Amino acid sequence: MITVTFKPGGESGRVEPGQTVLEVAHELDVPITAPCGGRGRCGRCRVIVANGCEEPTQAERDLLTGEELRNGFRLACEAVLMGDAQIIVPSDSRTVGGKILSEDTWRHLELSPNVTSRCLELPEPSLADQRSDAERVADGLGVPVADLHIDHAALAEMPGVLRANKFAVTAVMVGDTLAAVRAPHTEPCCLGAAVDIGTTTVVAYLVDLRSGERLATASDLNPQARHGHDLISRIEYVESTTTGLDDMRRLIVDLINRLLGEAVAQVDARRRDIYELTVVGNTCMHHLFLGLDPRNLARAPYIPVTTQPMVLSAEEAGLAINRAGSVYCLPVIAGFVGADTVGVLLVSRMTERERPTLAIDIGTNGEVMLWSGERLLVASCAAGPAFEGGEISNGVRAANGAIERVWLRNGTIGYATIGGVRPNGICGSGIFDIVAALLDSGAADSGGRLADASAAEKLAEGIASRLRGEGSTREFVVAPGGDNGSGEIVFTQKDVREVQLAKGAVRAAVELLCAEAGIGTDEIDEILLAGAFGNYIDRRSALRMGLLPDLPPERIQGVGNAAGAGALAALVSTAQRRYAAELARRAEHIELMANPRFQMAFADSMIFPD
Amino acid sequence: MITVTFKPGGESGRVEPGQTVLEVAHELDVPITAPCGGRGRCGRCRVIVANGCEEPTQAERDLLTGEELRNGFRLACEAVLMGDAQIIVPSDSRTVGGKILSEDTWRHLELSPNVTSRCLELPEPSLADQRSDAERVADGLGVPVADLHIDHAALAEMPGVLRANKFAVTAVMVGDTLAAVRAPHTEPCCLGAAVDIGTTTVVAYLVDLRSGERLATASDLNPQARHGHDLISRIEYVESTTTGLDDMRRLIVDLINRLLGEAVAQVDARRRDIYELTVVGNTCMHHLFLGLDPRNLARAPYIPVTTQPMVLSAEEAGLAINRAGSVYCLPVIAGFVGADTVGVLLVSRMTERERPTLAIDIGTNGEVMLWSGERLLVASCAAGPAFEGGEISNGVRAANGAIERVWLRNGTIGYATIGGVRPNGICGSGIFDIVAALLDSGAADSGGRLADASAAEKLAEGIASRLRGEGSTREFVVAPGGDNGSGEIVFTQKDVREVQLAKGAVRAAVELLCAEAGIGTDEIDEILLAGAFGNYIDRRSALRMGLLPDLPPERIQGVGNAAGAGALAALVSTAQRRYAAELARRAEHIELMANPRFQMAFADSMIFPD
Repeated sequence: MITVTFKPGGESGRVEPGQTVLEVAHELDVPITAPCGGRGRCGRCRVIVANGCEEPTQAERDLLTGEELRNGFRLACEAVLMGDAQIIVPSDSRTVGGKILSEDTWRHLELSPNVTSRCLELPEPSLADQRSDAERVADGLGVPVADLHIDHAALAEMPGVLRANKFAVTAVMVGDTLAAVRAPHTEPCCLGAAVDIGTTTVVAYLVDLRSGERLATASDLNPQARHGHDLISRIEYVESTTTGLDDMRRLIVDLINRLLGEAVAQVDARRRDIYELTVVGNTCMHHLFLGLDPRNLARAPYIPVTTQPMVLSAEEAGLAINRAGSVYCLPVIAGFVGADTVGVLLVSRMTERERPTLAIDIGTNGEVMLWSGERLLVASCAAGPAFEGGEISNGVRAANGAIERVWLRNGTIGYATIGGVRPNGICGSGIFDIVAALLDSGAADSGGRLADASAAEKLAEGIASRLRGEGSTREFVVAPGGDNGSGEIVFTQKDVREVQLAKGAVRAAVELLCAEAGIGTDEIDEILLAGAFGNYIDRRSALRMGLLPDLPPERIQGVGNAAGAGALAALVSTAQRRYAAELARRAEHIELMANPRFQMAFADSMIFPD
Repeated sequence: MITVTFKPGGESGRVEPGQTVLEVAHELDVPITAPCGGRGRCGRCRVIVANGCEEPTQAERDLLTGEELRNGFRLACEAVLMGDAQIIVPSDSRTVGGKILSEDTWRHLELSPNVTSRCLELPEPSLADQRSDAERVADGLGVPVADLHIDHAALAEMPGVLRANKFAVTAVMVGDTLAAVRAPHTEPCCLGAAVDIGTTTVVAYLVDLRSGERLATASDLNPQARHGHDLISRIEYVESTTTGLDDMRRLIVDLINRLLGEAVAQVDARRRDIYELTVVGNTCMHHLFLGLDPRNLARAPYIPVTTQPMVLSAEEAGLAINRAGSVYCLPVIAGFVGADTVGVLLVSRMTERERPTLAIDIGTNGEVMLWSGERLLVASCAAGPAFEGGEISNGVRAANGAIERVWLRNGTIGYATIGGVRPNGICGSGIFDIVAALLDSGAADSGGRLADASAAEKLAEGIASRLRGEGSTREFVVAPGGDNGSGEIVFTQKDVREVQLAKGAVRAAVELLCAEAGIGTDEIDEILLAGAFGNYIDRRSALRMGLLPDLPPERIQGVGNAAGAGALAALVSTAQRRYAAELARRAEHIELMANPRFQMAFADSMIFPD
């Protein structure tokens, strides 16, 4: 038996040698894409295998570039494992399903959607039975007509639909509201959509609410980015012009309408078949989608217009779905703790654990959640964009050419880029790895200072030779450029400082929440990492830089795209919707800015562990 | 003491002689207009005094025309009563208030409107108090924020309004929904409007919902009449074109918006100050206002789309009032028994009586309501337009020049026109009087046949000389024309037949409801007459022609414009709103067309009493 570990997910196990990486990945439930079915034809299952592997096959030599081969890339379907191995799975080799959803949450929920349908066969009216159309339908549904709310458009269509179908119809209910009376036996009948409005990306999932099956997914970049990549720029745009709020709202609503159009087209349905949307987003996205002024989110004391779950009509929300359709926005918690965080609370089930559990979601902002076993505390901290590649000299978003993985190798460093192409910058997961490598190799000390010339003398040559410059302009060459220096990727002293500030803020938030709850960080039983952060960063790197309390890596788990999973859970289950609202109510928001101990903890937390 | 009786109201009493008609009218609560304060200056208090009066004063001779003086017109403020007198009050001498509303109903209701306001002085937010704007307001209202529904537009305005007013604001609630947060101490704050959609006339009453005071009234003809004066023509129009229903809806909604604009302009308020509308109308008007297809109302088995009370948003209703405003449509009972009938049930309080009570509303259609002491039965019958002057040779609507009053006098007949001008036709109340006069004088027999030449010989010369023509073309000259016959007003044999058909239908409905309830018509304790019908027809004439069961005239009462009063009651009192819904539920609709005894009763009822 050999021991195989996959990164960044950390899936590990002892398996029979002689299997391909793909076979082992399947055994350990690691999601690796294999469009050709593992037959060595498409070249999409590229992984980096550190050791333990036989030589590349002919198929690999055909499908991988020379540079990829030099960098340790292999095809998972071809590479046969003979010894213990560490395997890095680049993001574009993972399957989409695995990237987006936490499988063990919404898919296994009992189906209790807010949208339901019933077939009715009603007696036709006569002089002896002059019940109104509405009363006839209500009686068919077994609801007193006085208690049945009927959507106005549905009521207006009712007399025609009843008579065209000889009073045998399908009734569609949205909650307690009769939303439509339709010809019977038409499919699809009841669709819903879950929408995850990210600051960067917007994803819409189309779901058949009678089966709970996800039918289609559509996504695109958030077009509000044209008015600023980060939240503060977008809020400034809203303040800068009288139509700013409307502009922002229209951008996101138009995009959602387009995504819904694409999704229904994939399954040959119509927009009017969609009866409900659930929506998650951070508090700013939530406010902009709802047309609520976000400006007070951005200035002290950071007051949201509302934090409650919101139910809007399709018309109020401006959405092109069934006219009687409804939109449910998951609650938010505070100005910088949004419905995405509620999603983490919901799908992680952290409050159902007996022992203290920490959850962290890092995007542009960091949100830290602590379940003490009794209290649920949440805080947001200005993690800054460093962890997403912002404010970093050669930082880039995770896209082709981004260095996403860095490791110490033969006394120097190795790296892998997304797509296996020449590097054009460093994205978030790469930044974590670089800082860990700098610390491990001694190129940076626990104060975050890059080794100066004299200190560098004690380092391995492959490391020391990459350090150059003096004082605050000192830097580490991650990837050498061409002959004229073009395409060189460096990590500077200032970059280390940015990472220190960001990780210091997150770690200080962890410390403060633990102090508020009266528990030590060593009492934390498990750490849950949400979203892209949880999917892509190397746990060991995060531990190495002291971002996380010191736990064994196997007690650090990703919970996937909890925001999207939360929206899906709320879509297919009203029980989950109520649960989410309860979690949002229960969560105690701790305002770090108001806490005099925060600055102190922040300063302490900026130091890297030895 | 002398006995004075006013017509058509039937107010009667014994009073001191030597008083003016106006003084006596005040004593007996007869509403006579007197803009100059009874000082003999404006000439507006014209009444017809049959006898018991001194000679006209100088002021009367100055202000009345020679023709008016010859016809018995006097000024109520000048004419002194010395003996028993019958006084006819023409419609244009009555005060408007008395014409429109039943004073003893809505005005004395306890104020419990659906729209309420509250002044809030809220603490300003801080880092130590980061409640959302919505939660802050909810806490100020003493409502858990999770239970407070906030109108979406109100929520969007909330952050700005709170901060512009330093968190001291007025909250306006529509039901349980927070409809607005406004600057404090602005007036008017909470307006509502009651709208009575008649087939012919639409009236909007503007009310201050904090005081219950009626601030303004605006009315106009129903513009749907361009597509037909009666309901059936309008329904045919709806069926004739794909935009028919929309056209009809837009016509009435546009008119209501215009009337509301006129009403708020009268009191220097704005449309957005109106937070709620209550609406009454017959079932067809109700359907057209709501955009519900009325076609099934007009064909057997006469099925309405809904009979329930309807609550719509201002936007759904298309009304230009506050965006968060609400529209409440009173319930209807059946295809031809509408919210106007519910208004009669509501304001007449008939179900609170111990003894059997009958109520009748006659417009284009007739609605008959019977409270047996236990059951509440309602029926509609095709009274036809004869009672409103339709289908009558010289029939006209009640307007200047219409003969509204006819009486036997000195062996011939006298008449009075609206406005006291030359007659141009006969309106509803005149038609009742003419038929009674024809029967009393012997010019028509109980079968409804006008006296032929030989029978006429036995009649008074002043009557016989007005009969002419033969058989089915025989007619009675009510008002002679000029030398060339122009302006002559006649009442024909066919006209008598039309009246017989109409009164036969109503009386048959009365008989059938009594039979259904198991009571004799002689057990009826009181008869209530609604609307214009109750305001203007002479009870004695109605009794004479056998339209009503034979009761002493003093047990026949008008209930005024019960439709408008019902809308007002529902506007100022949610208790009345619930009561109206309960009455509509409780009312048992008896479909006369399905009843084999109806044709029999109809034939019997066409005969006039001897």
